Parts: sequence; structure tokens; C-alpha cells
Amino acid sequence: MKSKLKLLIAGGDKRFISSAEKFSQYYETYAVGFTREQIPDEHVILCDVENVPACDAVVLPVPVSVDGVNVNAPFSEKNIPLSLIVPHMKHDAIVYGGKFNGTESLFQNAGFVTCDYVKNEEFSVRNAVPSAEGALQILLEELPVTVAGSRILVLGFGRIGSYLAKILHALGADVTVVARKPEALAKAQQIGCHAVYFDELPEIVRDADAICNTVPVVVLNGGILEKVRKNCLIVDLASRPTGGTDFSKARELQLKTIWALGLPAKVAPVTAGEIIAQIIITMQKERRE
Amino acid sequence: MKSKLKLLIAGGDKRFISSAEKFSQYYETYAVGFTREQIPDEHVILCDVENVPACDAVVLPVPVSVDGVNVNAPFSEKNIPLSLIVPHMKHDAIVYGGKFNGTESLFQNAGFVTCDYVKNEEFSVRNAVPSAEGALQILLEELPVTVAGSRILVLGFGRIGSYLAKILHALGADVTVVARKPEALAKAQQIGCHAVYFDELPEIVRDADAICNTVPVVVLNGGILEKVRKNCLIVDLASRPTGGTDFSKARELQLKTIWALGLPAKVAPVTAGEIIAQIIITMQKERRE
Amino acid sequence: MKSKLKLLIAGGDKRFISSAEKFSQYYETYAVGFTREQIPDEHVILCDVENVPACDAVVLPVPVSVDGVNVNAPFSEKNIPLSLIVPHMKHDAIVYGGKFNGTESLFQNAGFVTCDYVKNEEFSVRNAVPSAEGALQILLEELPVTVAGSRILVLGFGRIGSYLAKILHALGADVTVVARKPEALAKAQQIGCHAVYFDELPEIVRDADAICNTVPVVVLNGGILEKVRKNCLIVDLASRPTGGTDFSKARELQLKTIWALGLPAKVAPVTAGEIIAQIIITMQKERRE
Amino acid sequence: MKSKLKLLIAGGDKRFISSAEKFSQYYETYAVGFTREQIPDEHVILCDVENVPACDAVVLPVPVSVDGVNVNAPFSEKNIPLSLIVPHMKHDAIVYGGKFNGTESLFQNAGFVTCDYVKNEEFSVRNAVPSAEGALQILLEELPVTVAGSRILVLGFGRIGSYLAKILHALGADVTVVARKPEALAKAQQIGCHAVYFDELPEIVRDADAICNTVPVVVLNGGILEKVRKNCLIVDLASRPTGGTDFSKARELQLKTIWALGLPAKVAPVTAGEIIAQIIITMQKERRE
Repeated sequence: MKSKLKLLIAGGDKRFISSAEKFSQYYETYAVGFTREQIPDEHVILCDVENVPACDAVVLPVPVSVDGVNVNAPFSEKNIPLSLIVPHMKHDAIVYGGKFNGTESLFQNAGFVTCDYVKNEEFSVRNAVPSAEGALQILLEELPVTVAGSRILVLGFGRIGSYLAKILHALGADVTVVARKPEALAKAQQIGCHAVYFDELPEIVRDADAICNTVPVVVLNGGILEKVRKNCLIVDLASRPTGGTDFSKARELQLKTIWALGLPAKVAPVTAGEIIAQIIITMQKERRE
Repeated sequence: MKSKLKLLIAGGDKRFISSAEKFSQYYETYAVGFTREQIPDEHVILCDVENVPACDAVVLPVPVSVDGVNVNAPFSEKNIPLSLIVPHMKHDAIVYGGKFNGTESLFQNAGFVTCDYVKNEEFSVRNAVPSAEGALQILLEELPVTVAGSRILVLGFGRIGSYLAKILHALGADVTVVARKPEALAKAQQIGCHAVYFDELPEIVRDADAICNTVPVVVLNGGILEKVRKNCLIVDLASRPTGGTDFSKARELQLKTIWALGLPAKVAPVTAGEIIAQIIITMQKERRE
Repeated sequence: MKSKLKLLIAGGDKRFISSAEKFSQYYETYAVGFTREQIPDEHVILCDVENVPACDAVVLPVPVSVDGVNVNAPFSEKNIPLSLIVPHMKHDAIVYGGKFNGTESLFQNAGFVTCDYVKNEEFSVRNAVPSAEGALQILLEELPVTVAGSRILVLGFGRIGSYLAKILHALGADVTVVARKPEALAKAQQIGCHAVYFDELPEIVRDADAICNTVPVVVLNGGILEKVRKNCLIVDLASRPTGGTDFSKARELQLKTIWALGLPAKVAPVTAGEIIAQIIITMQKERRE
Repeated sequence: MKSKLKLLIAGGDKRFISSAEKFSQYYETYAVGFTREQIPDEHVILCDVENVPACDAVVLPVPVSVDGVNVNAPFSEKNIPLSLIVPHMKHDAIVYGGKFNGTESLFQNAGFVTCDYVKNEEFSVRNAVPSAEGALQILLEELPVTVAGSRILVLGFGRIGSYLAKILHALGADVTVVARKPEALAKAQQIGCHAVYFDELPEIVRDADAICNTVPVVVLNGGILEKVRKNCLIVDLASRPTGGTDFSKARELQLKTIWALGLPAKVAPVTAGEIIAQIIITMQKERRE
């Protein structure tokens, strides 16, 4: 009988609890930076980094590190230096992390392969679901009208924008997608939405009950914001550093604006953690073949 | 030129703010029990009940009264006795209210027609949308998984149950409708859901990530609740007095249970108020014809 | 061991082939009026009516008879008189038929219970699917434009109208439902359609690329037809005697008009036959309990 | 006032009738190879190629030519040599065609720019709708069961496959998408379908009521076809030369197999023609800017 692979999961937020439980169905799974209260599943072996046996794979969180030295481990009382993980890796082990931001060199210099699962296409596609559901939750919570019948702009038609537009349409919203490419407009129309180019945004923005932005450049600039209705809700899903909104102008205009970052971990940590685990399990399987 | 009808709106919660604004597009609209801060729309004339001119129609809230004597007017600092309204009604005026609970006799004895808009079929159909969106909001807030992919039971297939099942299916949930009538099962299947009779509930309840009940008798009794998974979320939309859940048993079993009443007023007061106004405008038009 | 019930299926169109095969999974099933080529499934026992043993249930087609004397058996070379069936029924047997049109008296006078499955609510709900798919097929075949983007009126919002409106909307058509009741309009809007009362039909009919009627009175009268565009397609699903269209006027105006009757048997005989069998199996089970 | 651009449309099938009518809303439009009966719209000027004035743009059909010498003009009684068009073009005119297959050199050698609109991304996206509706029409016509409830495999998840899977799911089919890329599987699941890799096809193919292929290599080879049920319908949408099916093996196995090519022109010529016109109008506008 072939013995199970050994996998170490070090640090991470709530998502990595369900990741650990998923991994333990496939691998001999060790977790560092969690207590038994946080991970009740006894199949996951909890230990200090010093006691971890030589592992075939290491899973690090998103981002891998906040300070560049220690693992990003919000649940851990002790620091877990990245350098302490290296001695517990087999010579052909692989390191999976989400956003290394330079910390990959520590592993690469020691001769290990690193892999950023956040850059994986399937990861982005699957994560669009919890992101879009998080945006929907904000709309349901904040709008004084039903989503059914409300006029909602979705800016951008990538993975999140397209899924969000689809579910808002399914809920009966009057959705207008704003995008750059003609084929994006064609696809938006095929899921039942109106679709316009960005140069038409100034004309249509006045009618919106809510605007959901997914474009990571400032598309909701001062000129656009001045045309927005006073009670229009802005939900910006675009990532740092700038998001897609001139937030200081929005504040000046007293527009309700929510910059919603990291939604998957917040609104559906179990699903988000299972997505990470599933991506890594698939990559690990392909690696072995 | 025919002069506009005069309508008095007396008391009510947030919904009646948007009702008043909607009414003012059609009628000369007077509101009692609100301040200008609450109803900024200048087309609505705010006044004390003593100063209201003779009106063609009176709109009372849901329920009409809490104590049987005064209008249910949560925003008013002063009491508004129902009996004080009568002198301000034209002889052929009509009184619209939601759940009179006996107070209709006061008006009927004075020779007026009363009409309970809550019993209107269209009202129930339209209100199903904010109710179901409210239930969806709770699921999004409380479940640690995405609605997409989660297994959700919807008990009952009336106006709310059928709309809720439809939108949960549209969001990618694995929905099973539990109902009594074969034609309800057939319709549930036609919107993409599984469908079973209530006698199969004990067998399928174990798999549920969430249960949404719309049936106003205790269908989630002790025997059923004991089969439910520990982390299953119960959202009960069934009305008083009992709801559809054995709540004390649910507490004993430490099941997360939310008895969600009056969702339209809470989650979409503007839409809910417009629905009330629209129903009354339609009834008033038919009355005139 | 309890022996299987004996069921006789006599006559019928293509649908009753799949009905027979479905029945044979539950009952000892005899079929009269078919050849082995038509029903290859060996579990169905083919025989002449004279050789049928005493049966617990008899299934007759839709309509039961064309001439009032013989079973409606289009696949049979010989006549099968209804009166010849009676001697092969147990004393407590039941006769299931679709539209007896007076022939039930023959059985009732002999002391048997008759049941018209066409009047069963579940039958109507389930049959709406093949009917609506049949209408969709006609639209796809006849329209020179895609259903996506075309403007389609659906007249009536009963079982067929509501399911048809739903699937046309899902295919991207711009659907307007025309109905009488305010709650029907509310429900039509909840599935993403426009909705108007019949008195608005004259104004909106000009824009239609196609009109699908389900109302069994002449709603598409001469006055309406004169307003219809020359290349508008009319699909009338309303039953005899009149349908819902002034057909002679439509011919005069050279409007392409298709009176589509009996769609389930034509477009999906296997599904339509299984629906009949399923309804009868359920009724038979309830009868035994 | 700026004078209108002059555009010549030469040859083509039914689609180019609606193309011509659409063009005539924007340009002074000349058509060669059609009669007034075919194009009743008087805004389109019909003439022989010899009488066409110097044009700014020429639109040729799909494919441009069948014999490499004359325009592909099925409605024309006379041949229209490609070489005769050149003298009627302004020096900066552009030639739009669908699949030049070498004939572009004739224009390029004369100094003109050519543009193959079939290669345009938006063209492919928009054409997916008539293609998928055509496939749906075949399924509705050929299957003896309703699409609702039937098990359908969609092979490939490109523009046509993804739209087809979406509408079949919306009609209540039990759809399984078979694709190569993990992100395609993730997206297929997000529209409510099952999704598997091609290596699982042999196991799941037995259950299918119908298989729709969009992959232009032979994925339905002999080994797969042998596992298919006798009454399974195969609709192959993959283009020449081979399609995606071993057709001779399918014939040997007596499987009902339909190789459906050129569906947009067949099932929705008006929409397909408008798509071509719209793409060219957009390209022409961008060219001028």
C-alpha cells in the first residue's frame, strides 16, 4: 500500500480551517497556527512547526506573509517564521501560497518549487461565486428596495462581473453591464442584460439604484459621481491600491459607498477554503502524473 | 378640470413613507403621524388629525391598531385615536387597512365601507418578492458556505415558497421543495427543483444545509428537528402564533433558528410601501369605475 | 407474496406505447390494439380483447372513443367495442379514460367507477411542458429571427401560458404576458416578463414578432388582427371548438397562423405517455390506501 | 452636409437580404445579385455590377466564392466575376468578406484592404445564439421526450457550447458539459450544469438521451459510439472537414446522427444577416475614427 502524502498547512484565516479538513481526506495533514477548537476535525494533526515531519507539500495562506518574515497566521499566538518551515520539507516538496510578494525567494533559494494558487485560472473562476454572493448580500442589506425591479449597473464583465450580472438578472433586477469589448457586450446581452460601452456611462448613471464595480481602475471618477443620484448605493469590488472609485469625492458628495474587499473569506469561508483545497489537490495530482 | 381626490394616510411604519409619496402622485395626500424629516416629499401635506379636510379615502397601517383604540403610529409622539378620524371622512369615503382585528366595526357602524388590503390576492403575490429576498439575505448572512451548491429545503409552495425556491435555484442552490399537493410538486420540478411530499421529510432533512419554512403549522416538530444536522440553519417565515417550528426544541438542540417575521417592512420598506400604495390605487380606480 | 394487479390498456395513440411500458413496471399489463412492433417491450402482454383476464383497472385513451361505440384505437386494424371490455373487468375494477364524452355511462351502468384523468390537476400541470415545448418548436421553425431578442406576446397565464412565458424569457425573448387578473400580472412580472391587461392588447400588438395564445375564447378577433404586423406569426394553442383566433379573418389578412392542437402527443409522445401512466399509478395507489 | 458612404453588397444567401436592409439605414446601399422580390426594401438600390458607382465599401458573402472566380451568389442568374467588382471601388475602399479562401489576393493586389468578418470575435459570439437555437430546434423536433427532464451531453464549452448548455438547462434538461479545461468545468457548473473531463465521457455516455457536439475534432469515435444507447440522438455542430463524429461508424450502428452545419443562415436568416451588418457597421465606424 502506497503511504499517504504528508501536507503541512501553516497559518491562514477561517478559510484554511475548511481547507485543512478537506486536505485531510486525501493527505496526512498537519496544521500549524490553529487550535483544536478552531479545527475540531481530528483527522487534522495539530502541532508546533518544530514537530512537523518531513512534508511533501506546504500550503501557505493569502497573502503568505504580512511582514515578509512570518507566516500570516491571525489565529496563532506565536509567530511562525517562514524560515522555520524549510527544514520540514522533503527535498522535492512544493510550496503553495497565495500572493508571495517576494517571500517565494526564500523557498526558491532553498531549491523548492513555489506555486501561487491565486494566479490559477480555475481559482479565479470559482472564487467569483462567493465574491458575487457577497456583493448581492450587501445590496440586499443596504437597498431600501427589492433587488427585483431595481436598476443596477455592473461595471466590468470579467469573472466576477459576469457572474454577478447573471444572478442579479435572475433575481429580476434591471441590469446594465458596462464594458470595453464588443464581445463582452454581446455576452452580457446573451444573459439578459443591457450592455453599453464605458463612454455611455455618464448618460446612464443617473438612473441607477446601485452600481457594482469590478474594474480595478478609477472608473467612478469625480465627473461620474456628480451625476449619480443621492440615494444610489455604490459597491466597489475592485482591489487595492485604488479600487475603482474616487472615494474622497464620494464622501464629499455623501454617497453611500462600500469598498468590499476579500468577500469570499468573509461571506463564505467554508466554500472559499474548499476552493483553495480543491485547486491544490488538482494541481498536486497533475504534478504526480 | 376634475379636482383630485383627497386621501388621508394615518400612522404606519417606514413603508407608509413611500406609500405617501406614491399616493401624492395621484391624490391630494394628507399624512398624520409623520414629520417632514420622515417624509421630505413636499407633495405630501403633513398635519394634525384635527386639521384634515373631508377625505375620500383613508389608509391605515398593518396592523391598523395595536391597542384597539389608537392608530398604530410608531413614528408619532401623540396618540391618534381611530375615532378622531371618522369626522374627517366624506360620507362615501372608504377605509383601507391591513388587519383590522375588530377595529373595522368602528368605521362600519359609522356607515363606511372598510377594505383589508392584506387579504388582497395581488398584495400577497407582490409581497412574496420582498419576503423571499429577506429570506435570501438571511441565508447569505448566516451560512458559511455559498448559496450556490448548498442543499436547501423549502417547505411549502405557496406564493413565498414558490418564489423563494425559484431564486435559490437561480443562484445555483440544490433546492428541494416539500409540499402536500401533487400539482405543487409538478410545478416545483418545472422550476428546476426536486420535490417531495411531507412524509418524505424525515429522510431528506439530514442532508440540508438550510431549511426555509413557509407553512404556518408546526412542520418542524421535535422528531424532525432531531434528525437535522447540527450546523443546519433554520429560517422560519411562517406567521404567528406558532410559526412552523418547535422553537423550544430547536433551542434545546442548539440549532440556529431564525423566526423571520415582517420581512417586507424590514428589508425593502420602499418597495413594500409602493406595493401597498399600488394595490390601493388600483382598488380605488376600480371602485370609481 | 401479493400478486400484481392486472391492468388493461385498450387503444390509444403513440403515447399509450410508453404508458404501457411504464405500467408494466408496476402491474401485470395487457394491451389491446397494438402489435409487438409498436410495443417491443416484452413485459407488456399483447392480446385480443377476448383473451384478457379479469382486470383490476382499465386504461382508455384520449378521447375514449371517436364514434361513441368503439375504443379510439388508431393502431388497431379491428374495431374494439367498448362493450366488449366490460366482461373482462373484476367487480371492483376502475376505468381510467381521457374525455369520456358520454361513454362513461356504459361503464357506470355496469356498476364501475370511471375516472377522467384529463381533468386531474397534476395532469394539466405536467402536460404544460410538452405543450409549451411544442409551441417553442413552432416558433423556432417558423420565425426568420432568433427567439432571443424577438418580441413575443403570450395571451393567458394559466398552466401552459405561464410555463411558455417562462421558457421564452429564459431564451432571451422580450415577452409580454396579457392576462385578466392582477395577480397573474404580478406573477408574470416575477418571472421577468412584461404584463398588461387585455384592454391594452390593441396598443401593443403592433410590435409583436409572434403571438402565442392559450385563452380558449376568441381574443384575437378581427379588430386586433388588423393591427398585427404582416410578418407576425400567430400560434394558437387554445382548444376546440373555436380556438382563440378569428381564423377566417387571419386568412383574409394573409397572416401566418398555426392552430396547434394536441401538441404533447405530437412533439413528445414518450413523455406525454409517461405523464398519463404516472398520474394513473398515483391515483391507483391512493385508491388502494 | 456630409454625403452618405456608398456600400455595395454583392451576392450571398438569405442573410444578405436583411443585411442589405440594415445597411441601407446607414449607407447609400447598392445590391448586386438580388431581385426586387427578394429585397422589397426600396432603400436598397438594385443594379447590375456594371452600373455600380464608385463605392467606399464592398460586402461579399460567406464564403466569398465557391469557384474562386465568381461571387457566391445563389440568387443570381448571372455569374458575377470578382474581378468585375474592382473597377467600382474608390481607391481607399475596403472589402468585407466571410472566408476569402485565397480570393483576397485579387483585391489586395489591386491595393485594397480586405477584412474577414467571420474571424471577428463579436461575430462568433453573436452567431452562437442562432446556432444554439438551431440545435435546440433539432432536439425538439427529433426527441420523442421533452427537453425538460432529458439527459443531454454538450461536448465543448466555447461560444456555442456554453450558450447551448445554458438554454438547455433553462429548459429543464439535465445537462452535462464535457470539456478539457478546469476553468470551463467551473463555469459550466456556475450555469447549473454537471461538468466532466473528456476522459470521463466513456462512462457517462450510456445515459444520454442526446449528445450535442461542438468540438471540431472526432471526439465521438467508434469506441464512444459503441457505448451510446440505440435511441440516443447525436447532433454534431462541428465544422468541416470531419465534424466531431465518426459518421460511418454511427451509420453502421444505426444511430440517428444529424450533422448540422450553417445553422444561423438556415434557422434565423434575418437575425444572422443583421449580425453581419452590425459587425461591419461597427468595423466601418472604427475605421473612420
